[in-house]
Amino acid sequence: MVQTLIILGHPNGEQSHTQQFLKESLEKFPNVKQHTISHSWDVEAERILLKQAERIIFQFPVYWYGAPGHLKTWIDTIFHPSMSYLKGKELGIVASFGVAEHQFQAGGREHFTPSEMFRPFEMLANYFQMMYLPIFCVFKWMYQSEGDKQKQLIEYQMYVSAPNPCRLIDKGKWLSEQLQTINTDGVFDSLIETMIYNNEEIEQLLTMVTDIKHNIR
Amino acid sequence: MVQTLIILGHPNGEQSHTQQFLKESLEKFPNVKQHTISHSWDVEAERILLKQAERIIFQFPVYWYGAPGHLKTWIDTIFHPSMSYLKGKELGIVASFGVAEHQFQAGGREHFTPSEMFRPFEMLANYFQMMYLPIFCVFKWMYQSEGDKQKQLIEYQMYVSAPNPCRLIDKGKWLSEQLQTINTDGVFDSLIETMIYNNEEIEQLLTMVTDIKHNIR
Repeated sequence: MVQTLIILGHPNGEQSHTQQFLKESLEKFPNVKQHTISHSWDVEAERILLKQAERIIFQFPVYWYGAPGHLKTWIDTIFHPSMSYLKGKELGIVASFGVAEHQFQAGGREHFTPSEMFRPFEMLANYFQMMYLPIFCVFKWMYQSEGDKQKQLIEYQMYVSAPNPCRLIDKGKWLSEQLQTINTDGVFDSLIETMIYNNEEIEQLLTMVTDIKHNIR
Repeated sequence: MVQTLIILGHPNGEQSHTQQFLKESLEKFPNVKQHTISHSWDVEAERILLKQAERIIFQFPVYWYGAPGHLKTWIDTIFHPSMSYLKGKELGIVASFGVAEHQFQAGGREHFTPSEMFRPFEMLANYFQMMYLPIFCVFKWMYQSEGDKQKQLIEYQMYVSAPNPCRLIDKGKWLSEQLQTINTDGVFDSLIETMIYNNEEIEQLLTMVTDIKHNIR
């Protein structure tokens, strides 16, 4: 079953290095469906996609402080007050910016934060009683070092596919699962073992803490 | 010369009672140009319209907490960082809502105010160093009494064509000018005379206040 649906709102995604990079990074996630908005669509078919998903993510480059008009038109057409099945689903945003992060704050050149700028999405989530996820922002991707890109890529994969809220133990599990999928020649065997062992440790410690709390009461 | 340019962003303006009503109310304002966005456009011609205007107003029905995708696509295509001639011009918003005003506040069903919801437009104005006008909101137009509609219509005409900031004396001048245009049979003669007289009074009082302030210093 598809759990995460990513609505790709870039009008020319193939031409965007950022979007292409992000897209390819999800090929090994069977529970993630990437859906590019075409230029015409079957409203009912699109709604079925939304209905099947547990987590819906709008992914787009920021054009003049919002989603590209193309994506907004899609939202205008597809979303309808009667879609009560959206209740309880998660709504996330993956937005890429051509401007540096520090500009998006009071006193910065853009004055407002991404959270403030994306209120319309938050209002959409509120309307349908969806859970609004923290916004995933990519700032000036092309100017990042290779190491920073790789780091952000893993955070992105986690944003898209890890449980929410994502506790330390969930991150540990997620990371060891990912390592296992690329561990075809066994080179990460001992690392994976250690991670699994550590995670078990954490789990035991959490149980212990719960017990202690219980006894104090 | 065109001073106010209203960009009509309703995808089917002729079918909207609100938009049609507002549109017709501006027929007697020679300094106001209403521009309906078509389905394709000549980018340079559209930019010339913006260049010629002193006040630019986006007018649209709110679709899912923002402008219709159609208008957003227009903005995405037309606006360009190089348009420094926008500096100092005014940017206004005329937005019609299908939801009651009191829902748009903390604790209301929509949580956020129109000011918060329209941050992307404010950010656009900031970017080009334009003066952002107070938002003109029309709430549940079809449910308003005939009297309320007429009252809001005059406020709308003022928003579009009166100077900004609009002091009491500017409102008085604006109103007496409007009365004169419809005073073809002389029925408002005495009313207009009184208004002009009152305005002169106010002007003299303002001068007097300025003098007193000056002498105190």
